[in-house]
Amino acid sequence: MNAFGRPATASFMAATAAFPDGKDTPRAFLERRLETIAAREPVVQAWVVLNEEGAREAADASAARWRAGRPFSPIDGMPIGIKDLIATKDMPTQMGCAAYRGHFPKHDAAPVQALRAAGAIILGKTVTTELGMSEPGPTTNPLNPGHTPGGSSSGSAAAVAAGMVPAAIGTQVGGSIIRPASYCGNVALKPTQGAINRGERQGLSQATAGVHANAPEDMWQVATEIVRRVGGDPGMPGLFGPPTVPAAIRPARLIVMESEGYAMLDDGSLAAFEGILRQLRDAGVEILRRGDHPLIEAFERSIADAKAMTNEICAFENLSAMRSLLEQFPDGVSERMKRRHAVGEEMSLEQYRGRLLQREMARHHMAALAPLADGLIAPASPGPAPAWAGDVPGQPLNPRPTGDIAYNAATSALGVPAVTVPLTTVRGLPMGIQLIGQQHMDARATGLARWLLENLQPVSV
Amino acid sequence: MNAFGRPATASFMAATAAFPDGKDTPRAFLERRLETIAAREPVVQAWVVLNEEGAREAADASAARWRAGRPFSPIDGMPIGIKDLIATKDMPTQMGCAAYRGHFPKHDAAPVQALRAAGAIILGKTVTTELGMSEPGPTTNPLNPGHTPGGSSSGSAAAVAAGMVPAAIGTQVGGSIIRPASYCGNVALKPTQGAINRGERQGLSQATAGVHANAPEDMWQVATEIVRRVGGDPGMPGLFGPPTVPAAIRPARLIVMESEGYAMLDDGSLAAFEGILRQLRDAGVEILRRGDHPLIEAFERSIADAKAMTNEICAFENLSAMRSLLEQFPDGVSERMKRRHAVGEEMSLEQYRGRLLQREMARHHMAALAPLADGLIAPASPGPAPAWAGDVPGQPLNPRPTGDIAYNAATSALGVPAVTVPLTTVRGLPMGIQLIGQQHMDARATGLARWLLENLQPVSV
Repeated sequence: MNAFGRPATASFMAATAAFPDGKDTPRAFLERRLETIAAREPVVQAWVVLNEEGAREAADASAARWRAGRPFSPIDGMPIGIKDLIATKDMPTQMGCAAYRGHFPKHDAAPVQALRAAGAIILGKTVTTELGMSEPGPTTNPLNPGHTPGGSSSGSAAAVAAGMVPAAIGTQVGGSIIRPASYCGNVALKPTQGAINRGERQGLSQATAGVHANAPEDMWQVATEIVRRVGGDPGMPGLFGPPTVPAAIRPARLIVMESEGYAMLDDGSLAAFEGILRQLRDAGVEILRRGDHPLIEAFERSIADAKAMTNEICAFENLSAMRSLLEQFPDGVSERMKRRHAVGEEMSLEQYRGRLLQREMARHHMAALAPLADGLIAPASPGPAPAWAGDVPGQPLNPRPTGDIAYNAATSALGVPAVTVPLTTVRGLPMGIQLIGQQHMDARATGLARWLLENLQPVSV
Repeated sequence: MNAFGRPATASFMAATAAFPDGKDTPRAFLERRLETIAAREPVVQAWVVLNEEGAREAADASAARWRAGRPFSPIDGMPIGIKDLIATKDMPTQMGCAAYRGHFPKHDAAPVQALRAAGAIILGKTVTTELGMSEPGPTTNPLNPGHTPGGSSSGSAAAVAAGMVPAAIGTQVGGSIIRPASYCGNVALKPTQGAINRGERQGLSQATAGVHANAPEDMWQVATEIVRRVGGDPGMPGLFGPPTVPAAIRPARLIVMESEGYAMLDDGSLAAFEGILRQLRDAGVEILRRGDHPLIEAFERSIADAKAMTNEICAFENLSAMRSLLEQFPDGVSERMKRRHAVGEEMSLEQYRGRLLQREMARHHMAALAPLADGLIAPASPGPAPAWAGDVPGQPLNPRPTGDIAYNAATSALGVPAVTVPLTTVRGLPMGIQLIGQQHMDARATGLARWLLENLQPVSV
């Protein structure tokens, strides 16, 4: 059991060992998850909709395949949650947005289609913040209901952390996979930009689909089973790496990424991160920081306002879709969303071009670090999940009720892979440690993260 | 009047000079177009649906703005056709596909939203081949109904050529803007990949939105008015260039692009093209060909199988959407479409990655030509529009009933701008001449094309 009361290495893949001879079955596995959901959902509120009957049918079909020795893939029978931004043919896709209430496209988006083809069980749709932006849904942090689970993949993070599913699909534009995983104590992969096919949702240039899970084995397998069936985004080569989880890679050298998050760490969060770095040094890993090399300093400068860069790029790219939505449904979005839209309406095309160029330059600075170290390391969020009790009528709106993207905006903009593992606890709540790689080196980032998970002692502050 | 019975330089922009004092009005301009449509549509069949009442209302509103001296843009009041792949809030979007019969998303795609904001009149939806691929619609070539208008932007090309609208929006993946424009005698811009925002249709990595028109002035203005309002595709900087049509640019040197089209030219088409090259040489323009420079030879080799490259890239990228469509509507697509889909189902991810790499290498070869010449020149299609009388029951399906993409697949894959101008006539039907530029140099390609249009004698063979 890890610090958060769940078996740290309990992968679905390990459970499948008992499926061929029927000692365990996908149906029984599913029923145990449904019991957990029944017990915890009233407080956690991770789900928008569940398809229990469809899931039971799919589980029985999977059980028959395992007994016959012909599972579709190693994740055949895995119950999985799908963030409610992503279309599913058998459940509505309402995107946490009033304008999309009852919205029900009758097809599977590419990653869902691939998961079904791999035998996975699409159990339900998980809560997202409104259109994946700031307005929170009802989900609470499974480790403390007074705190946010993070966003925008709130329900995916919480469903995994609460033991309701072994894995769930999330998406990230600014910090929506890695931050909630950090707050909920999950492992998670935010892959290289475009490495997992997003399906029709191609409207933002730095959005990715990714995976939350309890164990790296499941995390990687879900990602790779999707990509082998539907590839990456159009024009992208898709996730590279081995057909099962990459072996642990012992780092020789890691670079600390400060970005905008470092200055936001409180004493406890900083101490927890430094505790991880100390263990790495004790294990012989060289730790490089911004003062140690001019290329690292130049990299940090290139991402010094990654939050603003990310927010402006996304606001501009959302402009025409938001105009259409507001024309059709003037009251269909929140005040927070209207404020974001206003940022885009203030922008000129030249300003957007400037931000694209800045992003491109930052990507060159990132690539320049490749020969210096095996990867980058940072907290996955600037501290543990903040308390969140909801908006207070009459008070100004908190612009980031699901937490701050300060440790995620840069990696999102850079288009590089990030893997978070739950290695620290601050004031009783998890804070993830993320390993960051070069574009297309997702397998290496995963291997480094596995090494840390398997070789370091969790730090509690 | 040009060779095809319409005023070659009759731009909408010229007509607007009479709008401020009411000597002409957008409403009267529209009514003249509606008369043309009434006369010619029974044979041409360019339109899926027209919104005449909405257009009249919009024209009257535009007239009031011109009288008040406050038009929204230089194209305020321009009636325009929208290819039926692109969503419009007031008309269905049926994509030439049985599975989408009655499909009616209630919003404007980004380019339509921008055109309305510029005051343009969205007159109707123009016929597209099925999902923009090979299965033809009912449209005939306005210059000879026994011939194809080209595709997939069949209706947009024909509506402009028949004088029904001054401009229309098309899209190109393989050759769907430039080829029909060539066959119908239009000017047209297939811009740099991503230079005009496609809206939500981002599912193919080498698809572009572009413009058919009678005159370069209108062509450029439509493109630039869209981009100033909604930019380019997400992550792309959008069309660069002046706020009105670029001035004619006299070329010093042009490179002949042979690609796969050259070997397909019959004697007449070759003679017509050589007639254009002869005039250029007589005017002091140096013409470079593949034997003249190793970089040109290397470029030609890099695009030697651009048709297969384009077809495979698109088939793979269409896979998951086609699987969903076929699952929902097993009989909702044509046999031709099913054969295309089968190409994708045969492909592996590694094969797709190989094609992406090949495309990237070809783009480097193209970029290497920049210092050698002002641009590239080629026929816009391998000859004039082929005869097409429809499928013959019992006979094998013609894989390309709307003509061959041999002169367009390369520029589509390269992501470079192409502008076609109607400078040759072969056996009584037009064949366009295209000017091709480097990525983002759309204004230069347009300026070169204008110079040819204004300074060369049309060649008739």
